[in-house]
Amino acid sequence: MIIVLKPGTPDRDIDDVCRRIEGIGLRAHVSRGEQRTIIGAIGDDRFKARLQALEALECVESLVPILQPFKLASREVHPADSVVEVDGVKIGGPRLAIMAGPCSVESESQLRAVAEGVKAGGAHILRGGAFKPRTSPYAFQGLEEEGLKLLAAARKLTGLPVVTEVLEPDKVELVAEYADVLQIGARNIQNFSLLKEVGQSGKPVLLKRGMATTIKEFLLSAEYVLAGGNPDVVLCERGIRTFETTTRFTLDLNAIPVIKKLSHLPVIVDPSHGTGHWEYVAPMAKAGIACGADGLIIEVHGNPAEALSDGPQSLKPDKFARLVGELRALAHAIGRTL
Amino acid sequence: MIIVLKPGTPDRDIDDVCRRIEGIGLRAHVSRGEQRTIIGAIGDDRFKARLQALEALECVESLVPILQPFKLASREVHPADSVVEVDGVKIGGPRLAIMAGPCSVESESQLRAVAEGVKAGGAHILRGGAFKPRTSPYAFQGLEEEGLKLLAAARKLTGLPVVTEVLEPDKVELVAEYADVLQIGARNIQNFSLLKEVGQSGKPVLLKRGMATTIKEFLLSAEYVLAGGNPDVVLCERGIRTFETTTRFTLDLNAIPVIKKLSHLPVIVDPSHGTGHWEYVAPMAKAGIACGADGLIIEVHGNPAEALSDGPQSLKPDKFARLVGELRALAHAIGRTL
Amino acid sequence: MIIVLKPGTPDRDIDDVCRRIEGIGLRAHVSRGEQRTIIGAIGDDRFKARLQALEALECVESLVPILQPFKLASREVHPADSVVEVDGVKIGGPRLAIMAGPCSVESESQLRAVAEGVKAGGAHILRGGAFKPRTSPYAFQGLEEEGLKLLAAARKLTGLPVVTEVLEPDKVELVAEYADVLQIGARNIQNFSLLKEVGQSGKPVLLKRGMATTIKEFLLSAEYVLAGGNPDVVLCERGIRTFETTTRFTLDLNAIPVIKKLSHLPVIVDPSHGTGHWEYVAPMAKAGIACGADGLIIEVHGNPAEALSDGPQSLKPDKFARLVGELRALAHAIGRTL
Amino acid sequence: MIIVLKPGTPDRDIDDVCRRIEGIGLRAHVSRGEQRTIIGAIGDDRFKARLQALEALECVESLVPILQPFKLASREVHPADSVVEVDGVKIGGPRLAIMAGPCSVESESQLRAVAEGVKAGGAHILRGGAFKPRTSPYAFQGLEEEGLKLLAAARKLTGLPVVTEVLEPDKVELVAEYADVLQIGARNIQNFSLLKEVGQSGKPVLLKRGMATTIKEFLLSAEYVLAGGNPDVVLCERGIRTFETTTRFTLDLNAIPVIKKLSHLPVIVDPSHGTGHWEYVAPMAKAGIACGADGLIIEVHGNPAEALSDGPQSLKPDKFARLVGELRALAHAIGRTL
Repeated sequence: MIIVLKPGTPDRDIDDVCRRIEGIGLRAHVSRGEQRTIIGAIGDDRFKARLQALEALECVESLVPILQPFKLASREVHPADSVVEVDGVKIGGPRLAIMAGPCSVESESQLRAVAEGVKAGGAHILRGGAFKPRTSPYAFQGLEEEGLKLLAAARKLTGLPVVTEVLEPDKVELVAEYADVLQIGARNIQNFSLLKEVGQSGKPVLLKRGMATTIKEFLLSAEYVLAGGNPDVVLCERGIRTFETTTRFTLDLNAIPVIKKLSHLPVIVDPSHGTGHWEYVAPMAKAGIACGADGLIIEVHGNPAEALSDGPQSLKPDKFARLVGELRALAHAIGRTL
Repeated sequence: MIIVLKPGTPDRDIDDVCRRIEGIGLRAHVSRGEQRTIIGAIGDDRFKARLQALEALECVESLVPILQPFKLASREVHPADSVVEVDGVKIGGPRLAIMAGPCSVESESQLRAVAEGVKAGGAHILRGGAFKPRTSPYAFQGLEEEGLKLLAAARKLTGLPVVTEVLEPDKVELVAEYADVLQIGARNIQNFSLLKEVGQSGKPVLLKRGMATTIKEFLLSAEYVLAGGNPDVVLCERGIRTFETTTRFTLDLNAIPVIKKLSHLPVIVDPSHGTGHWEYVAPMAKAGIACGADGLIIEVHGNPAEALSDGPQSLKPDKFARLVGELRALAHAIGRTL
Repeated sequence: MIIVLKPGTPDRDIDDVCRRIEGIGLRAHVSRGEQRTIIGAIGDDRFKARLQALEALECVESLVPILQPFKLASREVHPADSVVEVDGVKIGGPRLAIMAGPCSVESESQLRAVAEGVKAGGAHILRGGAFKPRTSPYAFQGLEEEGLKLLAAARKLTGLPVVTEVLEPDKVELVAEYADVLQIGARNIQNFSLLKEVGQSGKPVLLKRGMATTIKEFLLSAEYVLAGGNPDVVLCERGIRTFETTTRFTLDLNAIPVIKKLSHLPVIVDPSHGTGHWEYVAPMAKAGIACGADGLIIEVHGNPAEALSDGPQSLKPDKFARLVGELRALAHAIGRTL
Repeated sequence: MIIVLKPGTPDRDIDDVCRRIEGIGLRAHVSRGEQRTIIGAIGDDRFKARLQALEALECVESLVPILQPFKLASREVHPADSVVEVDGVKIGGPRLAIMAGPCSVESESQLRAVAEGVKAGGAHILRGGAFKPRTSPYAFQGLEEEGLKLLAAARKLTGLPVVTEVLEPDKVELVAEYADVLQIGARNIQNFSLLKEVGQSGKPVLLKRGMATTIKEFLLSAEYVLAGGNPDVVLCERGIRTFETTTRFTLDLNAIPVIKKLSHLPVIVDPSHGTGHWEYVAPMAKAGIACGADGLIIEVHGNPAEALSDGPQSLKPDKFARLVGELRALAHAIGRTL
């Protein structure tokens, strides 16, 4: 951390800032420039959150962080790519991982048909929501435990491992009984109680970036799970909020190479939520793979116009299968497999 | 809701859309224009979330909502201003309500000093965090139940009712034992499990807008609490995320008159989190009151440079008292009291 | 356009709105719902900008546009893809078009070396700035006409046509003397005087999306050029402004399939300005092609650490050549050529 | 500027960076920390734009600016508030300055009525657009020179000085013949050719923040005008682009105290464009004054529902007069006059 002082700061204030830095357990290094005096706080300041409070001093103009605020999630500490394995499906290696299924689990017949469809179409993992976070209290809120049971049945039928969302700390145990991967949704990316809980669950975690979450904050949320002792974190870019309204969110694919530079964790793309319209899912899925994502999570529904949630962004099974075929050619062209 | 069809949609598809609308329990009204045929879905569609799925049909160009998606929170249904009363303090009437206190409860002596300071300075309600949502897992996470006890002791000492944040559904009961107002923080504005729980708590709720929450989504989150049977909701604007970085967030004061138009609920402003710098707290507090807010929530700390959280945005008690004095003159000028 | 009336609007006000709609030359169609009365203004309202003023009436709740506001740029009016031809290079057909070169023209030797480098690396068009829009008045402002002459000399040397930016209406004629394509930069996307002027220049125009320009506004800016009689418009996505700061802008690749749906105009991607860091240029270039862009514009510099502008986002010629090789394989995989 | 090096950077690369810094005319100061080596570039780097290119070096992790990039606009260089005087009206002193008038000059009778109305209502300066930047080529583009003449006539009639927008460098002379203040609109805030031209015009300039312009960029645009020799710059906050859609833009009032801290220039608020709805103009006008703005610019029209542009955000003259009365009380309460 660098502390920039206001012009004309007297020596006694400089000394005071140095004493405070040393009181926190770091070393202070003063550098007097022509325009500004700056003080470097030397040492690993990631565990020194109190440093931030120095900005409250009247003589301090600004604080400038030098280190990234996360550690376990950083590529600096862990240079090699991490691979998360789910029942034999590897996420993060040369082979791409495709997760697909309906937004919501609606019924046994709906889920069975979609599960068989996405398996035939080339998916490796089945997605489906049992607990649904809905913007409106009047919208379908999910089948809850009944939905989890249907997911487990679909896994038995198809052999596909299952990823599903968990919304509350005290439901983690229940969801972990049925699911192979615990999904933390975009709206819960800074639900730190929930992050701590899945950090202790022993299950792989799919962490979706929030709609207003910077990449650094996203990696800090991953740090919560890693710091809880769970190394199996998969990140997911799913669109951020911007001024543009032709898409539901703005899928930020720049996040893929940025995360690959800053972190060792695998990262996948959700083009369904990211765009909100099925017509844009295929092109953005391809773009996600082309810029280095380790996989995709795609919404598929047998009858989107009757879906209880997110119909407009769902592919039909045949369109999904065609997309996977196109992705296979693309993967090959960039030196990966599918 | 209006369904806009693609140009050249054949009659059998128009009929199909009408049948689907009627199947959901609404009436369909077709209007053929020169460029587009549109179909109005007539009736109260707020409880008809499935309508949205029609956008998945190939013949549908777009869906255009006509009604606001919330009902209990709307001024249309409840034209008069709501007033929320907390232990004799009214929020939403002609008199402004001032909440103040430290970001985090840190110790008995810290809290006692601040509580007495803000009471002397003119605050009506004491704020203080016991459970802290922190971006970094390495930052101070709050004193938890011990913090709640200190808040209760400070209330006894000063007579000020207490507002504090609750982070998890299964902590609502605990926090409600000690607090007079339950705060839902910005990061939990779409934590729907938590919203449902505080909807049943019997305590007034202070709901902070999320950093990427539209005003309509904000009112839908309020709708969750109201629909749970709890009419005592106070809204709080605390800054949204934009590209501007000289402030920590962009306090969106436009939200005040917009909310006053759309809703009957009282709304206050948090200039501390909204700007992130103590120097901007006083001007933005005044601006919030000038555009119609019903009150303020302001961070005050006896020694900001040693604060365990949010020091840079905290006022010292003397600056807070001076601000309340200035606000009193301002309130009078716009026909309110303080 | 649909005019939504406030609840309880009396008949005389409904009649008044209808009369005003008819006075503008459209037909009015009243539809009385349970919750709202709405009035459709039937006819082509794109030339009826005065319709917007009806929102000022006290009885009007909101206005809802049904048609896209642009016409010549729309795919509805012109269903087939447009191809813009520049000296034999086709932009918009099956073959991808690659534009490359330095941010600024700095000297004869610098430009010659880069021009030969990008030609050898596989570029089809040479880019280079002679008039530079710089955020700071103290930054290098370009070689101006001298730069244009150097570009013309580089074209002669390499055979590559030249694209360069024009900043002012009264410089269009001068720039058009030397350049094959006139670039309108992001900061001038709503410089309507300039758009009108290039609409009459007889030269192809490369139109870069502004950093806060919605896709609809972007197509309206294209409409200015098209309405001026110039059909040769190439659109370019180059990043929008969001809250994320690890990239200089947020390259919005979603714009590619959205524009392809709404418009017939060719569209390319600028991964250099879009990300601001050379390490992200290759992955985002690939992603741009994968989601359907018709080409790329990439900054290349022989010695980025000495560049007078935008060094951090420039590729060296060898990295550029390697990227083009990788793009060739990718193009093949998605059914295009390079 | 601080140059942060990647971990493990060898000494010869550190030396190379130092040599480059010294080659630019600054001094290099190396500081070796536990986690990172950083190099301070000491001296006034605002005129050293080439420093930025060092980020292109492979050994450089990031560049961190310490000084603000503007100088003439900064309060550091010019601690006292600047006051801009227009025909006896002072902008920036204790008395607030109110500019008002129609969005567009439409006709002699329209302008005369509004001009007399705003004068009677308490305005000090008349606004009105003769050259109009319109998003759609099919919208009314202004009366051009005829409009300027009508403005001059209205000045003669009312005694109010006139502010009007100029869109092109080669129209600056013409507009300056008629106008007392030259307005640079939001869409031209980075039209640097135009900024240079008004910097030499000898007329006060009203500079409106762009919809995606950071406050630092805004002050750099002011720096263009100041560096051209024109000290009479008035800044205007008029709303930025965010995800929120209930207002046309998000009026960013935080900019007022931030600009007051960073700069000596006077700053006013445009609540009409900032919100886009007349109902929000009065509350946001008050908020602007409460947080320290030096004045307002407000759109007023005799018959908003027939306005050729921006009717929905225009006040009628009687509402304007009432607002000025309310502002007078408010100004008094915060120690200013009106």
